[in-house]
Amino acid sequence: MQALRLHRYNERPTVDEIEEPKVEDPLDVIVKIGGAGLCRTDIHLYLGQWHELDADAPLPYTLGHENAGWVHEVGSAVTHLHPGDTVIMHPRPSCGFCFYCRGGNDMHCPHGFFPGLTTDGGMAHFLKTGARAVVPIDPNLQPADVAALADAGLTAYHAVRKAAPDLYPGTSAVVIGAGGLGHIAIQVLRALSPTTIIVVDRNPKAIEVAKQIGADHGVEADGSHIDKVKELTDGNGAEVVLDFVGELGAEKDAWQMTRPNGSHYVIGYGGTIEIPAIDVISTERNVVGNLVGTYNDLAELMVLAAQGKVTLHTKTYPLEAANDAITDLDEGRLPGARAILIPS
Amino acid sequence: MQALRLHRYNERPTVDEIEEPKVEDPLDVIVKIGGAGLCRTDIHLYLGQWHELDADAPLPYTLGHENAGWVHEVGSAVTHLHPGDTVIMHPRPSCGFCFYCRGGNDMHCPHGFFPGLTTDGGMAHFLKTGARAVVPIDPNLQPADVAALADAGLTAYHAVRKAAPDLYPGTSAVVIGAGGLGHIAIQVLRALSPTTIIVVDRNPKAIEVAKQIGADHGVEADGSHIDKVKELTDGNGAEVVLDFVGELGAEKDAWQMTRPNGSHYVIGYGGTIEIPAIDVISTERNVVGNLVGTYNDLAELMVLAAQGKVTLHTKTYPLEAANDAITDLDEGRLPGARAILIPS
Amino acid sequence: MQALRLHRYNERPTVDEIEEPKVEDPLDVIVKIGGAGLCRTDIHLYLGQWHELDADAPLPYTLGHENAGWVHEVGSAVTHLHPGDTVIMHPRPSCGFCFYCRGGNDMHCPHGFFPGLTTDGGMAHFLKTGARAVVPIDPNLQPADVAALADAGLTAYHAVRKAAPDLYPGTSAVVIGAGGLGHIAIQVLRALSPTTIIVVDRNPKAIEVAKQIGADHGVEADGSHIDKVKELTDGNGAEVVLDFVGELGAEKDAWQMTRPNGSHYVIGYGGTIEIPAIDVISTERNVVGNLVGTYNDLAELMVLAAQGKVTLHTKTYPLEAANDAITDLDEGRLPGARAILIPS
Amino acid sequence: MQALRLHRYNERPTVDEIEEPKVEDPLDVIVKIGGAGLCRTDIHLYLGQWHELDADAPLPYTLGHENAGWVHEVGSAVTHLHPGDTVIMHPRPSCGFCFYCRGGNDMHCPHGFFPGLTTDGGMAHFLKTGARAVVPIDPNLQPADVAALADAGLTAYHAVRKAAPDLYPGTSAVVIGAGGLGHIAIQVLRALSPTTIIVVDRNPKAIEVAKQIGADHGVEADGSHIDKVKELTDGNGAEVVLDFVGELGAEKDAWQMTRPNGSHYVIGYGGTIEIPAIDVISTERNVVGNLVGTYNDLAELMVLAAQGKVTLHTKTYPLEAANDAITDLDEGRLPGARAILIPS
Repeated sequence: MQALRLHRYNERPTVDEIEEPKVEDPLDVIVKIGGAGLCRTDIHLYLGQWHELDADAPLPYTLGHENAGWVHEVGSAVTHLHPGDTVIMHPRPSCGFCFYCRGGNDMHCPHGFFPGLTTDGGMAHFLKTGARAVVPIDPNLQPADVAALADAGLTAYHAVRKAAPDLYPGTSAVVIGAGGLGHIAIQVLRALSPTTIIVVDRNPKAIEVAKQIGADHGVEADGSHIDKVKELTDGNGAEVVLDFVGELGAEKDAWQMTRPNGSHYVIGYGGTIEIPAIDVISTERNVVGNLVGTYNDLAELMVLAAQGKVTLHTKTYPLEAANDAITDLDEGRLPGARAILIPS
Repeated sequence: MQALRLHRYNERPTVDEIEEPKVEDPLDVIVKIGGAGLCRTDIHLYLGQWHELDADAPLPYTLGHENAGWVHEVGSAVTHLHPGDTVIMHPRPSCGFCFYCRGGNDMHCPHGFFPGLTTDGGMAHFLKTGARAVVPIDPNLQPADVAALADAGLTAYHAVRKAAPDLYPGTSAVVIGAGGLGHIAIQVLRALSPTTIIVVDRNPKAIEVAKQIGADHGVEADGSHIDKVKELTDGNGAEVVLDFVGELGAEKDAWQMTRPNGSHYVIGYGGTIEIPAIDVISTERNVVGNLVGTYNDLAELMVLAAQGKVTLHTKTYPLEAANDAITDLDEGRLPGARAILIPS
Repeated sequence: MQALRLHRYNERPTVDEIEEPKVEDPLDVIVKIGGAGLCRTDIHLYLGQWHELDADAPLPYTLGHENAGWVHEVGSAVTHLHPGDTVIMHPRPSCGFCFYCRGGNDMHCPHGFFPGLTTDGGMAHFLKTGARAVVPIDPNLQPADVAALADAGLTAYHAVRKAAPDLYPGTSAVVIGAGGLGHIAIQVLRALSPTTIIVVDRNPKAIEVAKQIGADHGVEADGSHIDKVKELTDGNGAEVVLDFVGELGAEKDAWQMTRPNGSHYVIGYGGTIEIPAIDVISTERNVVGNLVGTYNDLAELMVLAAQGKVTLHTKTYPLEAANDAITDLDEGRLPGARAILIPS
Repeated sequence: MQALRLHRYNERPTVDEIEEPKVEDPLDVIVKIGGAGLCRTDIHLYLGQWHELDADAPLPYTLGHENAGWVHEVGSAVTHLHPGDTVIMHPRPSCGFCFYCRGGNDMHCPHGFFPGLTTDGGMAHFLKTGARAVVPIDPNLQPADVAALADAGLTAYHAVRKAAPDLYPGTSAVVIGAGGLGHIAIQVLRALSPTTIIVVDRNPKAIEVAKQIGADHGVEADGSHIDKVKELTDGNGAEVVLDFVGELGAEKDAWQMTRPNGSHYVIGYGGTIEIPAIDVISTERNVVGNLVGTYNDLAELMVLAAQGKVTLHTKTYPLEAANDAITDLDEGRLPGARAILIPS
C-alpha cells in the first residue's frame, strides 16, 4: 500500500510503497482509510520539533493522526466491530483498565499511544489501531468529511462540553481565535447552549465566517478588543472564555475578559499564564485545563456531525499529492478549510 | 459604649466611649457582641495598607470583622430574628436582589459592604449590621468560641466544600500552611470526605498539631517537600491542593504538587501564579479561585462547630486590653490560637 | 381601579371598582399591570376546588397569578427597582432569609405566598407584591406578551433546566402533552440542548404546531405511542421523559417510555405514580419532582423571550371582557393560545 | 478442583470434583478463590426462583457471585494483572466498548454476564472471569474478609456515593434496614459525609450494632417510626432516605420520611412505589433507582476497607461445609454476620 512516510527531519515526507499492516494482537483493528486530516502538527513533526521533545516515533514512520474510514479486519477479541463499519478514530488508544479508563477519562490513561506520532498513522491505505480507539459513526457520514474532527474537533468539543453547564441564558462565551478549532467551538456552543457567542480574532474575514456559523458578535483583536468584549458584557467580561490561541498575548487577554466567578479555558498554548494570586481570589475566577477529549466526546460530536449541526470546510487531495497539501497549508492557501488526504 | 477605634494610620487604635448604634433602616440589626476575632488584617488596617488600596472607611472607624453575639434589636422589616438569638455574622452583608444573591452566591453581590473595614465593625459592645448577614446558631455555642470562624473559618470551609466532590476514597488533599485557616480546613476535610490529608508547613510543631486534628501525613517544607508529597501520592501529586499561603514560593509548589486532572485551590495570596499554557493543557489541571464563602457555607460550618467537629484554640482578652492582644499577635505569642476580644 | 373579583364559588367573578393598593411594608412594590394570564387554575378557583383544599384566600379576592407590567411605586427599603421598570412577577414572593431562599431555591421557602390565590392577584390595574417577586426584564418586551410565562412558562423552564445536563448529543427527550407548557418546553429544550425532541399528544394539530416550533418527531397518543417512542429510541426509550399531563394514563406511559438509567419528570398531576420497586432498581431509573421554578429560572426564561427563542401565542381581552375569556377557555376556543387580560 | 454445584432445583447443591477452568479467550482471567460470600440470593437460586424468571444458567452450574482471591492465570491480551495479585471481582463483567462502559457506567452494559448466576461462579477453588471484572486490591486485605463486599457492599456504596453530594452539614440521612447492606451504608455514610444518620429497623439489637458503627440515632420500626424520624428532622423528614428493605411497608414509609426537595433511594425490593403525582410535584421530591455499582465504586470501597473504615462481621466455613452455612443462614443463626466459604 501507499503511505506518507517521514524519513528525515527537515525534509518533506515521501509517499512510499510499504506492506499493509496485519492484525497481530487480539484487540487490533485494521481500518481502510477514507480520509486523513493534515494539520499544523504534521509540519511540526517533519521539522523535528516533536523529536526535540523526545515525543515521536523512531524514523521512518507514517504520518496521520486525524483518521476516518471503514473497518477492514479485526482481532480475535473484537466482537463489536465488523468489516465495513464506518468509523472515526479517537486519536489516542487507551488501556481500558486503569482508573481513568474505567471512569471514561481516556486521555489520562498512562498507557495510551498516538498513531501518527508515536506509531504509524493514517496517511496510508490502511491503519492499524486498537479497538478502544474506534468510534462507529452514522454510515451516511463520509470519512473524508469528518476526519479532521478526530483531533481538532474533539479538542474544541471537549472544552465546550465542560463549559456548557455554566452557559445558561443571559451568559456570554468568548471564543478567542476563529480558526479551525474556533469554528467548531462556535458550532458546538450553538448546539449545546443558548449563550451569547463573542468571537475575537485578528482577521476580519475569519470573524465574518464565524458570524455566519453562529457567533452573535465579532470583535477584531486590534488592541481595543478587551474593552469591546467588556462593553458587550455589562462591563464585567464573559462567564466563559475559550482561548484557542494561547500565545502572543491571547493568554493574557483571555483572563482580562473573564468575568468574576467565571472561567478561562486554556486550549491553545505557547504562552504563559501569569496572574497575581490576589487577582485569582478577589474575583474567584478559574483557569481550566483541557486535554483533547474522551471517546464518548468524539461519539457525541459525530452525532452533531450526522445531524448537520457541525460541518467543516475541507479541501481534498489524493494521498500522492500530500506534499501539495503541505505546501498549501504552509503558505496560507487554505484559510478556513482543512486539507484532507484521500488514498486512491 | 466602648469601641476599638482607629484614628490615625500607623498608630494603635484606642478604646473610646462612643454612642450605641441605632436601628435606622427597616432591615438593620443591632447585635450585642459576645466576641470579636482579631486577625492579621486588623494590623494591616492600622498600618494603613488597606488605605493605600482605597479599601477602608474614612477615619475614625471601629475595627472588628469577625463577630458573634446575640441579637439586641431589629428593624421593622426583620421578622425572622429576635432579641436574644445567638448569632454569628457573615462578614459581608449583601443586597439580596441581584442575580448572585438570588443564586446564593453572596460574595459576588456588587452591592455588599464589610463591617470592620468599610463601616464600623464589632470590636465594641454593639454592632449594627444588615439582616442578610446574620446567621442564627445553636444557642449552646458561645459567641467567643466561634467568632473567629466568621471570616477565616468561612474561607477555609468554602474552599474545602467546593473541593469535596473530587475527594472520594483513594484521593489525597494537600493543605499548604498549617496556621489558622489550615487547621480549620483539616477538620472540615475530615468531616466532609474520606480523602488522605497531607499537611505541608515549615513549622514542625504546627504539623504536629495538624496531625492531632486529622491530618494523615505531615511534610516539612524544607526544600524536599514536593518530592515527599509525590512519594505519598504514587509519584503523581494530589487530586486537590489547597494553598493557604499563596506567597514565598508556596504558590509555585502548589501547582507542582497537583496531580494531572487535579485542581490547585488558591486561598492565600501575595505571590503570582505563573504556568506555561502547555503545562495546563498537557495535564488538564485547573487553578481555582476562592473568595470567602456564602451565607449557607457559614451556616453549615456552624453545624460542624455545634457538633464539635470543628474547634478553635482561642485566647480571650477584655476589649479594654485590645492592644495587648495586638501586641501578642504581632510578636508571635499566639501560635495556633486566635485572639478574641470580649466587651465587658 | 378595576379588578376581577371572586365573590362566591361556582359563580363567575365580576369586574369591580375597588381601591388601588398602597405601599405599606418597606419591601412592598406596586406594579401597574400590562397583562395578566388566564389559566385553567382560575377556573378551578371559581369552581371552589382550591377552597376545598383550604388553599385560597377568603372571599372576595382578586384573581390573576401570571402577571407582568411596570413598577409603579416601591417601599422605603427597595432600592433596586424604580417606577417605569418593565417587570414580570415570580408567582410566589418568598422570605429571603431561610436556608432555601439563601440557596436560591425560592419555591421551598416555608414563608411564601401566592398573589391571585392566597392574596389579591393581578387581574386589575395595579398589583401589590413583595420586592423579592419582581423580575426586571428587557424594556423591549411587552408585558402582555410574556405574562403567561410567569407560572406556566416558569414551570416548563425549571423542569427542562434540571434535565438539560442529561441531554447531550445522541439522547432523546419525550414531551408528553403539546399544550401550553409543552410548547414552551419544546422551545426551551431546543435552546438549551441538542437532544432529539419527541412530542406525544392525542391531538394531531397540537403535534403539528410542536414540530413547527422545534420538535423532531411527533407521536399520536393512540395506544401505539409507547411502541412508537421505543422505535424512535433504539427500542429502549428516552433518557428524559417530561410528563405535562400526569393523569389519564400519561403518568404510566411516561415511565414506560423512560430508558434504563433515565429520568421521568413529573409535572402534570392528577394520576398516581405506581412502579414495582424491582422495576426501579433493575433499570436504575428515577422519578423526578418539579415545583414551579426559581426567581433566577424566570430571569433566564425572560432572556430567552427577549432573544426571541421562546414565544407564546396569545389572545388579548380587555379586563372588562374577562368573562368572555373564561368562556372561550372553558369551551375550548383557544387551542394553542393563552388568554391575556389587559386593563384599559 | 472442588466446586459447589447446583444440579436440581429445590435440592441442596453438592460439593463436586470438577475440572479446573482454563484460559480460552485472550481477556480471560483465572482467579484462585480466597473467599466466596454466601447470600440469600444463593438460597433463591437453589429454590429455582431465578429459574422461573429465566434468569440463571442451565443446570448444573457452580454457585458464588461474591468472590475474592488471587490472580492465577491471565489470557494473552491481559497485561495489567499478574499471578499473585490480590483481587476482588466486580459481580458483572462488562463489554468495555458500549457507551455505558466507555462512560464508566458498567452495570448498564447490555452485554454483561453474572458469574454464579448466568455462568459458573466462585464457590470453588478457581473461577474464570473476564479481565474487566477484576479489581486489584491492597495485598494486606484478606480475600475472605472482603468477598462479601463484592455485591452487597458495592450496592450500598453506590447508593450512598450518589447521595453524598446532598448530605452536607445540617442534613439527615435515614437508613431503613440495619442488616448487611444497611451496616455497610452506615459506615460509608460516616466516611463520606457529616450528615446525621438515623437508622430504622424492627430489631433493637440491629439498631444497637448500627449505633456502634456510626449511626447517630436509632428508631424502632414499631408503627411510630415515621413520626419519630420527623421529630428528629424538624418535623419535615430527611434529605435522603435509603430504603434497603423495599417491601412490607418500608417502601411507603421511605417516601413519608423524605423531606420536601429530598430523595428516596430505592435499593431493597419486593413492594411497589405508589405516590400521587400531586405529592411528587407539590414537594419536588425524587425517587432514585440504584443498580449494584460500578467498577470504580468497588475500587473505592476497597480503599475504605483497606483504611479500616468499612468492616464486615464474617463467619467462615470450609467449602466442603457449604451446606452447613446454607442451613445457618436459612435458620437465622448468622445475625449481623456474613457466611464466607473458603476452599481448602
